[in-house]
Amino acid sequence: MEQVQFNNRITALLGVKYPIVQAGMVWCSGWRLASAVSNAGALGIIGAGSMRPAVLLEHIEKCKKATQNPFAVNVPLLYPDIEKLMQVVVQQGVQIVFTSAGNPDTWTTWLKERGVKVVHVVSSLKFALKAQQAGADAVVGEGFEAGGHNGREETTTFCLIPMLKEKLDIPIIAAGGVYSGRSMLAAFALGAEGVQIGTRFAASVESSAHDHFKQKIWEVEEGQTELVLKKLNPVRMLKNPFYEKVKELETIGASVETLKNLLGKGRSKRGIFQGDLQEGELEIGQIAAMVRKSETAAEIVNQIVEEYIRMKNSL
Amino acid sequence: MEQVQFNNRITALLGVKYPIVQAGMVWCSGWRLASAVSNAGALGIIGAGSMRPAVLLEHIEKCKKATQNPFAVNVPLLYPDIEKLMQVVVQQGVQIVFTSAGNPDTWTTWLKERGVKVVHVVSSLKFALKAQQAGADAVVGEGFEAGGHNGREETTTFCLIPMLKEKLDIPIIAAGGVYSGRSMLAAFALGAEGVQIGTRFAASVESSAHDHFKQKIWEVEEGQTELVLKKLNPVRMLKNPFYEKVKELETIGASVETLKNLLGKGRSKRGIFQGDLQEGELEIGQIAAMVRKSETAAEIVNQIVEEYIRMKNSL
Repeated sequence: MEQVQFNNRITALLGVKYPIVQAGMVWCSGWRLASAVSNAGALGIIGAGSMRPAVLLEHIEKCKKATQNPFAVNVPLLYPDIEKLMQVVVQQGVQIVFTSAGNPDTWTTWLKERGVKVVHVVSSLKFALKAQQAGADAVVGEGFEAGGHNGREETTTFCLIPMLKEKLDIPIIAAGGVYSGRSMLAAFALGAEGVQIGTRFAASVESSAHDHFKQKIWEVEEGQTELVLKKLNPVRMLKNPFYEKVKELETIGASVETLKNLLGKGRSKRGIFQGDLQEGELEIGQIAAMVRKSETAAEIVNQIVEEYIRMKNSL
Repeated sequence: MEQVQFNNRITALLGVKYPIVQAGMVWCSGWRLASAVSNAGALGIIGAGSMRPAVLLEHIEKCKKATQNPFAVNVPLLYPDIEKLMQVVVQQGVQIVFTSAGNPDTWTTWLKERGVKVVHVVSSLKFALKAQQAGADAVVGEGFEAGGHNGREETTTFCLIPMLKEKLDIPIIAAGGVYSGRSMLAAFALGAEGVQIGTRFAASVESSAHDHFKQKIWEVEEGQTELVLKKLNPVRMLKNPFYEKVKELETIGASVETLKNLLGKGRSKRGIFQGDLQEGELEIGQIAAMVRKSETAAEIVNQIVEEYIRMKNSL
């Protein structure tokens, strides 16, 4: 591969060779995926959203043994036991935390006082400005096309990144629909200095998702994901029998209570981790329609970097 | 401005200096806007969707007098009097037709037999493949973020363009969220060879939209447009009192009939052309949040080309 230096504010901040981040996804990104990505020169993230504090501790310990390179932990700020999670992160000397799904005010300061670098995930310019104000070192700008939980503004990656670039001083990592070297180059043209990739890594060899879920991703066609449950927390999921039930209720104007009852507890675990493709919540991005095969994390990172260079030279 | 040659399949097909197309928008794009864009070296389009055949004839005649450069006509294929519109187009010697909103099978062949170049607007890979099969010379791939009528798949520009690039042989023009040189460069990285821009031209000096509507665009903030009326034909519009009524009905699961009754006739004319910001349907794209001032069509084209070159050199 042609040697290219990706020196920018994101590689400097994260201490990585390539400004590529693997999203911290529930039920997909444990130590195995995170360390594989970090070993490939990108940033691996342990997704703490689906872990109890003791489980997170175990994953961090294993990740440290599996890679010498920097890795991060993603902490959703609405996590009920967040104090305990944050204690684990700091005690284990994790150097980078990606925060999401919540107000960055409290924890950004707390983490930065302890020498931890903080990147906050946002779905809109408004929240990005709040994150910058709170002292975040960078933001992930995540468009409407991303899998899982998302914003109410429905701003797409193509619109969100230039909006952030125009108003922010801190660097931007683009997420939502990012899949290839092509899309990485496009994200950089829009003003990003890094990309965060979820769906393609969710289907990777090292992902802890169930094989049924990974195989399903390879078959997803365009239009087979949708952002639903907007009356609760908007979430992009695959159209399966569980989705059909959600949709049926939404079409007749069901109440928040009715939707909460249908959702119940553990739906995403059931789908993604246990492989129940009928009744599980299968969180995945629009770009799943381009993920067609099993790949290792290293293959993904190398292929993206190679295509980025090729595309850049051919523009 | 640095001299740059944009020679590719789109500039060759359309006979233009720059691979930039002004979208054929209802109530915005008459002969004045189309000729100004064509005179600036891009492709102007007369939007026939809001014109009776006699009105279209008048616009084509005036456009021919106002520019020596190629221009096109956009014809929505669901237009009730489409035979008459198409006769006008061919009799007037219009060389390029952009078709949208309907099945390209019938009219693509008819137009091509008469020496007219055909570009079909699509919102999904499925429809793009149909357009290619029908003989279209190119497609406009229009993402979820675009203003006005849109597809049911909700595929965003960032996901749609690489999907099209992977499967199509004919060239692609990217639309939806395209606003600047930055976004043009991003669209090219994703695989497009041209861009179609709507919202920014809708607010331009030469647009036939009402001043109230143009001024409103300059104030739009992120999250203030939404794709609604999905039970009828999905359309992205500005959040105004008319939108609130639509939303209220949709939230309680209103029927197609109820929604049709609310919509009635002439809502977009009322909003865009007559400037009724309360009761009109204000069709506009997400990227309206970045349009902040009055510009001429030539200023828009020149600024995009200049920024494209600057961004390309700085990548």
